[in-house]
Amino acid sequence: MEFPREIITIAKDVDKSLMTYLDVGKHEKLRQAMKHYPEAGGKRMRPVMAILVAEAVGKKGSKAMPLGCALEIIHNFTLIHDDVIDEDPVRRGRPTIHVLFDVPTAIIAGDALFAIGFEVLSETDVGLDDLRTIFRSVSETVFLIAEGQQMDVDFENTVTVKIEEYVEMVEKKTAVLFACAAEGGAIIGGGTKKQIADMKEYARLMGIGFQIWDDVLGIKGDTKKTGKPVGSDIRNGKRTMIIVHAMEHLAEGSKDKKILLAALGNEKATDAQVSEAIRVLEKTGSIEYVHTEALRYAAEAKQKLDCLKPSREKDILAAFVDFAVGREA
Amino acid sequence: MEFPREIITIAKDVDKSLMTYLDVGKHEKLRQAMKHYPEAGGKRMRPVMAILVAEAVGKKGSKAMPLGCALEIIHNFTLIHDDVIDEDPVRRGRPTIHVLFDVPTAIIAGDALFAIGFEVLSETDVGLDDLRTIFRSVSETVFLIAEGQQMDVDFENTVTVKIEEYVEMVEKKTAVLFACAAEGGAIIGGGTKKQIADMKEYARLMGIGFQIWDDVLGIKGDTKKTGKPVGSDIRNGKRTMIIVHAMEHLAEGSKDKKILLAALGNEKATDAQVSEAIRVLEKTGSIEYVHTEALRYAAEAKQKLDCLKPSREKDILAAFVDFAVGREA
Repeated sequence: MEFPREIITIAKDVDKSLMTYLDVGKHEKLRQAMKHYPEAGGKRMRPVMAILVAEAVGKKGSKAMPLGCALEIIHNFTLIHDDVIDEDPVRRGRPTIHVLFDVPTAIIAGDALFAIGFEVLSETDVGLDDLRTIFRSVSETVFLIAEGQQMDVDFENTVTVKIEEYVEMVEKKTAVLFACAAEGGAIIGGGTKKQIADMKEYARLMGIGFQIWDDVLGIKGDTKKTGKPVGSDIRNGKRTMIIVHAMEHLAEGSKDKKILLAALGNEKATDAQVSEAIRVLEKTGSIEYVHTEALRYAAEAKQKLDCLKPSREKDILAAFVDFAVGREA
Repeated sequence: MEFPREIITIAKDVDKSLMTYLDVGKHEKLRQAMKHYPEAGGKRMRPVMAILVAEAVGKKGSKAMPLGCALEIIHNFTLIHDDVIDEDPVRRGRPTIHVLFDVPTAIIAGDALFAIGFEVLSETDVGLDDLRTIFRSVSETVFLIAEGQQMDVDFENTVTVKIEEYVEMVEKKTAVLFACAAEGGAIIGGGTKKQIADMKEYARLMGIGFQIWDDVLGIKGDTKKTGKPVGSDIRNGKRTMIIVHAMEHLAEGSKDKKILLAALGNEKATDAQVSEAIRVLEKTGSIEYVHTEALRYAAEAKQKLDCLKPSREKDILAAFVDFAVGREA
């Protein structure tokens, strides 16, 4: 299936609403800081998912716009704080907010976006119980994202991270927000209990697959398409699922482990050292393992779509998974 | 009127609920960081106000507990991020969270508390319209706090801050959260439109008075009671309303302005220099001005209580103002 054009149409509608929601406040610098990432683009995957799901279960896509925008705003808030925490200088090809302005402004702009996200959410046109459920779901989700971010920070100082811990971190940092979008979309669309639960699970599985597919791209991706140099994840010392798997399977003090550690997080590693490290990752089966895992999550996600009647939206939700897991950039 | 014992009773109930609400999550360090400030105490002024107002308008104090706890949790989230931004090492006699743990953990713990605040808020037992209104009010309030915090940050690099700008900053950083507590309490208590508006205004006025009274204490407070050395605000270069007023009224290049600037923000200023600076602040009438302003806000706040029928809660709300403006520590 080709990349569905409807996704682009929905994303454009989201853009318009989003910019209106963010054009608030008296403080010019703060407003600029708040809009800096959302204006730089982004695929709007979370709002698109909320709207598609609401449409798939009840033909009520437009009613999910406030939820979708709220989650996109919250997503951007977490990116700002993430970048402060990781001291990243660049995001979406632009200087990060703490670089363009300063750390205090970045912290405050994140907090302000979080607040706006909840304000936008309060516009959701549903009954009392559903509104309460959606609020609880979104706030619990942000709490889980915070836990995932804290795990990620702690991993920096952990010698051996377990695969299960890594998956838990990825689930919390990435998958729960997709799950929240799909669950909320299903509630707003008036889905059945089973549809609400299955759509949430669909998005959770897709979110994990999406994130660990990134780890595969970071090692095996076509540098012309990803825009990242070969093995950049290795030189940066990024703790990916591939590395976690390899570290778990390489014997302490073995020659292969030494080869991997010589390149890992070594910005001055030669191309030969990086190639050797990749050969080790192939030998341990770590790349293959993560590749297979990503496809498994994708397949399980698609199965959850069985709860939906046949529709164009159902097909797009399936294509969404192929886009998330299997993309080349 | 003596300090009402009921306030202490309510604050104790709040403490109990608060600790239950904060005992969540899988991540031990994050939970410790989240509970660090709330456990260290605090006067619980915002929950007490929400509960007293709900009781005063409709005998429904206990229904305001989730709102009160949510606002206390949100208050603590803003304190954590404030301390990171201001690089303050101590709060309530304990090391701040970024000192005890690190900056990333402090940023994340603040975000997590914000999320929990909204989760707690979703428990509020009211109808659909009221729930929506309360959600909008709380999220708008947090946005205004962010704007106030940004103004405060910007003031550091502003040569001449105007009195109106200072009042706007104080209103946003401090008063709006009190206003939100009282407004929400009045809604939950089933108050009339006028009561809801007047209670919000009562708390806003009291909040401004509360904050600028701090500025008076920082210069004229009894050091035995405040625990702060004489003129600590001057040596720290804290931009208080008293300083803002004096800077506005001292001629550029005048001898008095030089005396003030010699001590302001000069940690090594001698006691004689600080005393001289205080004499300048007395001469410009700045201390007297702020003292009078604080009492004026307090008096106007009390007038807003006219919308309430006579009750014990009404008396306590009046005493609350005297406690906020007029306290010695």
